[in-house]
Amino acid sequence: MRYIVALLAALTALPAAAQPLDTAKRLVAAALADSWAYEFVAGLTTEIGPRLAGTDAARRAAEWSAARLREAGFDEVRIESFPMRAWLRGTESAAVIAPSPQTLAVTALGGSVATAPEGIEAEIALFRSYGELLLAAPGSLDGKIAVVTQRQTRFMDGTGYGAAGPVRRAGPSEAAKRGAVAYLHRSLGTADHRLPHTGALNYQEGAPRIPAAALSNPDADQLERLSARGTVRVRLALATSAVESAQGFTVVAELKGSETPEEIVLIGAHLDSWDLGTGAIDDGAGCAIVAGAAKLIGSLPRRPKRTVRVVLFGAEEMDYSGPAYAAAHGGQAAKIVIAGESDFGARKVVQIQLPPNATASMFGRGLGAAVAPLGIVMSPAPALTGGADIRPLQRLGVPVMSLRQNGIDYFDIHHTANDTLDKIDRAELAQAVAAWAATAYLAAETGVDFRALGHER
Amino acid sequence: MRYIVALLAALTALPAAAQPLDTAKRLVAAALADSWAYEFVAGLTTEIGPRLAGTDAARRAAEWSAARLREAGFDEVRIESFPMRAWLRGTESAAVIAPSPQTLAVTALGGSVATAPEGIEAEIALFRSYGELLLAAPGSLDGKIAVVTQRQTRFMDGTGYGAAGPVRRAGPSEAAKRGAVAYLHRSLGTADHRLPHTGALNYQEGAPRIPAAALSNPDADQLERLSARGTVRVRLALATSAVESAQGFTVVAELKGSETPEEIVLIGAHLDSWDLGTGAIDDGAGCAIVAGAAKLIGSLPRRPKRTVRVVLFGAEEMDYSGPAYAAAHGGQAAKIVIAGESDFGARKVVQIQLPPNATASMFGRGLGAAVAPLGIVMSPAPALTGGADIRPLQRLGVPVMSLRQNGIDYFDIHHTANDTLDKIDRAELAQAVAAWAATAYLAAETGVDFRALGHER
Repeated sequence: MRYIVALLAALTALPAAAQPLDTAKRLVAAALADSWAYEFVAGLTTEIGPRLAGTDAARRAAEWSAARLREAGFDEVRIESFPMRAWLRGTESAAVIAPSPQTLAVTALGGSVATAPEGIEAEIALFRSYGELLLAAPGSLDGKIAVVTQRQTRFMDGTGYGAAGPVRRAGPSEAAKRGAVAYLHRSLGTADHRLPHTGALNYQEGAPRIPAAALSNPDADQLERLSARGTVRVRLALATSAVESAQGFTVVAELKGSETPEEIVLIGAHLDSWDLGTGAIDDGAGCAIVAGAAKLIGSLPRRPKRTVRVVLFGAEEMDYSGPAYAAAHGGQAAKIVIAGESDFGARKVVQIQLPPNATASMFGRGLGAAVAPLGIVMSPAPALTGGADIRPLQRLGVPVMSLRQNGIDYFDIHHTANDTLDKIDRAELAQAVAAWAATAYLAAETGVDFRALGHER
Repeated sequence: MRYIVALLAALTALPAAAQPLDTAKRLVAAALADSWAYEFVAGLTTEIGPRLAGTDAARRAAEWSAARLREAGFDEVRIESFPMRAWLRGTESAAVIAPSPQTLAVTALGGSVATAPEGIEAEIALFRSYGELLLAAPGSLDGKIAVVTQRQTRFMDGTGYGAAGPVRRAGPSEAAKRGAVAYLHRSLGTADHRLPHTGALNYQEGAPRIPAAALSNPDADQLERLSARGTVRVRLALATSAVESAQGFTVVAELKGSETPEEIVLIGAHLDSWDLGTGAIDDGAGCAIVAGAAKLIGSLPRRPKRTVRVVLFGAEEMDYSGPAYAAAHGGQAAKIVIAGESDFGARKVVQIQLPPNATASMFGRGLGAAVAPLGIVMSPAPALTGGADIRPLQRLGVPVMSLRQNGIDYFDIHHTANDTLDKIDRAELAQAVAAWAATAYLAAETGVDFRALGHER
C-alpha cells in the first residue's frame, strides 16, 4: 500500500512541461517503489512454470503475458506466431559402470538426438580442455564417449560463458568427426551443485549426429578423478524427440508515440525458457524488467514522442525468435531508432553501453545523470550487441544498446533446474526496471538520432 | 612433499619422556601438515561412491576402508557384520497436474513404501507448519496428499535440524492417521537448490503406511504459491523396495594400549551414506577425521596407555549400526572410558563438549591448551550426546564427548545429491583431524577417569 501511494505520488506530481531528465528521475523513483515487475515474474513462473519454445506451455505463457500487458494499459498488445522446430527432453540418465558403479548427473543438450532406449555404454576418452579434443586425430575416439571437462571461469559480465560456448555448441560434432559415439562435457556453469546446465548445440553438416549431454561440475570432477586412476566405462541414455512443424509465439506491446509514432524504441526480453527450471532469471526477469519499465512510462500523463515497443521473444533458447522477428519486420528496421534485450538475470544494472558516440552526447549525459544514483556507470565503449534476439536487427543496421547487469552468480543458476523465483531479489529487480525505464523514456522523448551519432568522428 | 617432511619432523622429534601436552601439540602440528585424511575421503567417495547400508557398495566400502587402515599401521583391523533390513530407492517423480503442469523435484524418504507404478494423483492439503498438520482432524485429509512446508532455520550447530526432525520422521504417519494417501514435506535443509533432502522416516504402528517424499525448497515455495491461488493436483510416483535380510558392515581398527589395553577410547564415524550423493561430508569426512587422527597417534614412537579404537559404523542412516554395536559389545561398555562420533561434516571443530566436570579437570585444561591455537572453545556445558551410533553405548553408561564442528552450511549439502568431495576444504578437514588427534591421545594417555569426574559435585 505504501508502495502504491509512493508510486502514485511520484507519477501524478509531474507537471506537464517537465524536462525529460526530471521525468526520468521520477520514473526511477517510481520503479524503485513498484512491485508490478516482481509480480509479473512471480505469476509467470508459478502459473505457467517452464515454457520451452514450441510447446503448449509457451503458447499459454504468451496468452498469459498478453493478458497482463493489456491490463497494464498498453495501447496495443499482439501475439505474433512463427514456425519452428521444437525439441523435447525425455528421460535422461548416466552412470559409471566400471570401476565403481555410480550415478552421474547429466542433462541432454538442446537439439541432441536420442540414444537407443537401452543407452550407449562405452569407455570414455577424457579431455581436460576443449583444445585437447580438437588436437585429437580422426579415428582416435572410435567407439568412445568423448568427455570434455574444461571449466568455465566466473566473471561478473559473463565473459567466461562466451569463451566456453564452443565446448557445448561445437563439441558434439568435433567429437563425432573423430569417431566418438557420444559426447559429455562439464556444464557451462559456475555452480558446485549437481544440477547440470543445458543449452543448445549446433550439429555440423557432414558430421554424425551423436547424443550429447552436460555433466554437473561435481560429476565432471568425479570423472577426472576416476580417469586418472584407470579406464572408465560409462552408460548414457537420453530420450529426446522433435516436432518438425511447431509454432513459436512472440508478444508485442506498444505505447504509441505522441509525435513521431513511426519511430520505435524497441526493448525486448525472451519469454521462452528451458524446461528444467521455471525460467525465473532466464528470462522471466527480463520480461518483467522491460514490460515493467514500459508500463511505468505508460503511466505518465503524456506518451513520449516516439513509440516504445516491448517485444517478448518466443524462442531465444532455440535460436528462432530473433531471425523470425527480423524476417517479419525487417522492412521497418530503418524506423527502429534503438533496440536492446534484457537477458542477463535479475540483478542490478551496473553499466550501460550505447551505440557509438552516444555516451558523450547530450542524451548520454542526461541518461548518465538519471541513473548515476542507481550506481550505474556509463560505458566508454559502445555496445557490441543488443542481445541474441536483437542481432538480426543489428545486421539490418539497427543501433543497439546493452544494459549490463551484475552476473557474478548468473551462471550458478542459468539453464539449470535451479532457475526458480527464489533466486530473484525484489530490490535488485526494481533497480533494473528503473534503469530500463529511464533509458527507454529518454530515447523515446529526447529525439536523439543514434544513426547520425554513429557517423560522427 | 613439504607436508611429508613437516610431518616426519613433527613426529620424530618427540623425546621419549615428553609430557602429554607437548605430544598433543605435536600431533596438532602433524595433523595440519598431513593429507592422509583428505586422500581417504577422496578415495572412498571416488573409488566406491555412494554406499547405502545393506548394499554391495557398502560391503565394498568396508573392505576398501579396512585395506586403507591396515596400510596405515593399526594393530588390528576387523570387519564386523550385522543383520539389517535394507531399503532401496528406485525411480521417483512428481509433478503438478493442475492448474499449471510442471515437474516437482522430490526424493523418497528412507523407508518409504512405493506408490503403484502409475503413481498417486490427488489434490494437496498444504500446511505451512507441522503444528497445523497435527491440529487437523481425523478424516480431514481423506484422499489427499498432505504437504508440510515448514522451513528449517539455519543454525551453526544444527539446532534447526533437530527441531525439524519430526516433520520427516513422524509426519508420514501423522498425515496417514488423518486420511492422507501420500505425504510430501519441505526438505529438512537450508539450501536454495532443487536437490531434495532424503532421510529416514519412522512409520508408527497402527497407522497406514503411505508413500512419503521430500520436496526441494524451491518446489515447496512453488506449492505454497500455487495453493494460495487455488486447488492444486499433484502426481507422485515412487518405486522403492526392501531387502529383509541384508547385512551391514562396521569396520574397527585399534591401536593397542601400552599399559591398560583393556581400557578403550572409542572414536567413531559412519561409513554408510545416502545414495543420492557420494557421502563426502556425511560421513566420509568423519571417517577420514577419526581414522586420520588415530593414524597420527599410531605414528608416535610409543602407543598411548589406553587402547584407541576407531569404529566406522555401517548403517547409521538406517538406525542399525549403533544398536548392533552395543548389542555385540555391550559387555565391554564398562571398559569404554569415553566415546564420541564425528558426524557433522568437514568444517573446523569450534567447540569441544566433554562429560560432566571434565572441562575443569586437569585433562580438560590440558586439552583446552592443546586446541586453543586451533580456535576451539571448551564448552562449559557437558556433552548431551556422542552421536547417533554412540547413543546405545551412552545408555549403557559410557561417558560421551562431542567435538562440535561449524555446521553453518552443513544442511545445504547433507542428505542431498550435492554431498560430493568438492564441498570439502582440505585445511578445514585437517583442523578437525588435529582436534580429534589431541583429544583421543590425551584421553588415552593421561588416564583420566570420566566416570569418577561425573560423580563429583
